[in-house]
Amino acid sequence: MSDLDDTLDPALRSWVESANEPLTDFPLQNLPFGRFRIAPDAGWRLGVAIGDQVLDLQTCGLVDTADMNQLMARGPAARRALRSALSQGLRAGSPLQSSWKEALHPQAAVEMGVPCEIGDYTDFYTSIHHATTVGRQFRPDNPLLPNYKWVPIGYHGRSSTIGVSGQSFPRPWGQTRAATAPEGSPPSFGPCRRLDYELELGVFIGSGNAPGSPVPIASAEDQVFGLTLFNDWSARDIQGWEYQPLGPFLSKNFASTVSPWIVTMEALAPFRRPFHRAEGDPAPLPYLDSPANRERGAFDIQLEVWLQTARMREAGHAGDRISSSNYADAYWTVAQLVAHHTVNGCALRPGDLFGTGTLSGPAPDQGGSLLELSAGGKQPFTLSTGEQRSFLEDGDTVILKASCERAGTRRIGFGECRGTVLPAAAYPA
Amino acid sequence: MSDLDDTLDPALRSWVESANEPLTDFPLQNLPFGRFRIAPDAGWRLGVAIGDQVLDLQTCGLVDTADMNQLMARGPAARRALRSALSQGLRAGSPLQSSWKEALHPQAAVEMGVPCEIGDYTDFYTSIHHATTVGRQFRPDNPLLPNYKWVPIGYHGRSSTIGVSGQSFPRPWGQTRAATAPEGSPPSFGPCRRLDYELELGVFIGSGNAPGSPVPIASAEDQVFGLTLFNDWSARDIQGWEYQPLGPFLSKNFASTVSPWIVTMEALAPFRRPFHRAEGDPAPLPYLDSPANRERGAFDIQLEVWLQTARMREAGHAGDRISSSNYADAYWTVAQLVAHHTVNGCALRPGDLFGTGTLSGPAPDQGGSLLELSAGGKQPFTLSTGEQRSFLEDGDTVILKASCERAGTRRIGFGECRGTVLPAAAYPA
Repeated sequence: MSDLDDTLDPALRSWVESANEPLTDFPLQNLPFGRFRIAPDAGWRLGVAIGDQVLDLQTCGLVDTADMNQLMARGPAARRALRSALSQGLRAGSPLQSSWKEALHPQAAVEMGVPCEIGDYTDFYTSIHHATTVGRQFRPDNPLLPNYKWVPIGYHGRSSTIGVSGQSFPRPWGQTRAATAPEGSPPSFGPCRRLDYELELGVFIGSGNAPGSPVPIASAEDQVFGLTLFNDWSARDIQGWEYQPLGPFLSKNFASTVSPWIVTMEALAPFRRPFHRAEGDPAPLPYLDSPANRERGAFDIQLEVWLQTARMREAGHAGDRISSSNYADAYWTVAQLVAHHTVNGCALRPGDLFGTGTLSGPAPDQGGSLLELSAGGKQPFTLSTGEQRSFLEDGDTVILKASCERAGTRRIGFGECRGTVLPAAAYPA
Repeated sequence: MSDLDDTLDPALRSWVESANEPLTDFPLQNLPFGRFRIAPDAGWRLGVAIGDQVLDLQTCGLVDTADMNQLMARGPAARRALRSALSQGLRAGSPLQSSWKEALHPQAAVEMGVPCEIGDYTDFYTSIHHATTVGRQFRPDNPLLPNYKWVPIGYHGRSSTIGVSGQSFPRPWGQTRAATAPEGSPPSFGPCRRLDYELELGVFIGSGNAPGSPVPIASAEDQVFGLTLFNDWSARDIQGWEYQPLGPFLSKNFASTVSPWIVTMEALAPFRRPFHRAEGDPAPLPYLDSPANRERGAFDIQLEVWLQTARMREAGHAGDRISSSNYADAYWTVAQLVAHHTVNGCALRPGDLFGTGTLSGPAPDQGGSLLELSAGGKQPFTLSTGEQRSFLEDGDTVILKASCERAGTRRIGFGECRGTVLPAAAYPA
């Protein structure tokens, strides 16, 4: 651990006993940030997860604000100092234990919010496995477009409908027309029939950059506060009809779900990996390349998707794990996304969110969406209850999970990103 | 004027003399809202334009906030009441003249801001003339896609780089590769060479809707606060390489410019027009159709683009008018945009912005972008100074203007939307 700071020592234990359990997502080595409130009419407060508790940062005197965006704007040095103080104070034997005890709330007793005010949200498309499989369905002759290996493809999404884990939303209405419909035939209008999730990570921006000032890749990660889980719910039938020529719109903006705890870049430091291109692939352009990015640009984050149907929920069944993948298989790194997004002078602001895009692995059972797992709906699969799925049904809950494990380190996790599909509402006349 | 309220009577005169001049954009019948400040370190305040003056709404006791988004959230009835009070107080002979005089500032002496905090920004594509001309350049065989006459095509843009009239920005850097480049050849990286403007109107949302609650077309305009000018600067060479499959991204998000004064739906009431589809075109789907939309869904707003080169500016020359068009030629109305955007349950919030998309007319000299006026750069045109343009050069200023005139009404205008291209900055190493 010599190149990593002392908050990451796997031998560290906390006086919060639940943080020492081997399978907790939130040991002393994690310390992710979130917003919570103790009652629906109470204000949001800043907290850090420790075991099954939340530590109130203002009550224990470590911050002077309840505004996550302010904390984010202060940049990496301030965040590291705060992390260090938290780590010290939460360690077994800390003299602060008696006063900080008062700042703890059981996570089960608080409500978590979207972790900050999100100004702009951008969704990327960083998994070449996802891009190839889905591209084949939309463009059989041309699955991976010529720009893919050069441009970290992204598009803007909508902030107004981003909710936190626990979000539920009615099945969206929209226009659809099958690609095979006769030319000139009218579209249909009705509730979406090909509703899907997308397994993504969220990247929260910290201090950001001024308009007209690109961020070089060498310092790109200084702009990043940390990562969350992210579900970019997608209406595939609406998307297929609307997306040309300007990209996805109503097929994506009815709901997106983020997990409440932002796992910081510091906590992820032990789980970095070299970033390699496959043999024969072009090297990234210089503005997307750096020695540090090659040596440690990727993150080894194990991802899982669980599906709990209404019938499972009634039976007290936690759901089936329907796929898993790893963020290290992405084609573009976090640093490359920041450098690319700002290369034209575009400003990033504290609290802005990137989605990585669906994180599918190379194997068929590593698809990060039902579109992939069911081969575009053509191959429904069977759940442990005997129920079949090609796309989401009303009452389905999708749960995303992520964790990092490596020999000689303490395992950390991201918590959950959970969302539920409600039946379509009656369309207002 | 029997169906219109008394604030629109063309005979009304103001005690602010400049408001009575025939060519002012801001007579008593307009009363657009904006944010201004009297010094760089003073806070933004809410104002209304009257002639060459701005009236401070808080000083004259008409509002209790300096937050435009709050005013927007109060909805159309509150806005109409405020407009009526303003109209009464600013009329010649009003007993309020002596006290309100103190609330006036010369427009030339204040700084205008972006009119509100913009949460989400969506850009539409409502001109079928623009879509056809540009579509032909990107897809010669397939200019107008099958969805165009059914779906009000839109995509999300970025709020962080929206600036107010007077904005300047460096020419953006980016990746480009000509469509004719050999397969597999690497892209270039450098400053944009095909920089363009787009003549648009901005639509500011007023009260908005809750997630999961579509807005029916019959009440869609109740969600709209008013209109502005909007320039969606575009890097065509970057766009051509990046836009597939997810739409424009870095080609659009380096800068967008809005005019400072929001012309309300009330002020635009006399300039409405029936909304007709061309013979043979499909009728809009029921959720995009209503009797009111057919009878008065369109707006007769005359639009102009002026180009002032650096050489013109040095010579004190105001610029050349290089094109004009009319918003009534758009294929989709404001009400249709709101109904479509929310049909899937997407939430609109006070202060959200729509761009209409480039508003080109049917004639070749009515193109709302240089991409159209220069036929994709193939036909440069000559300015009054003898200079030639196919795309924008460093130092060029683009000025958008709009006005409404109709017999029996008072002419109103939108002010200006002005922006200047600076040379590309050195790319940070």
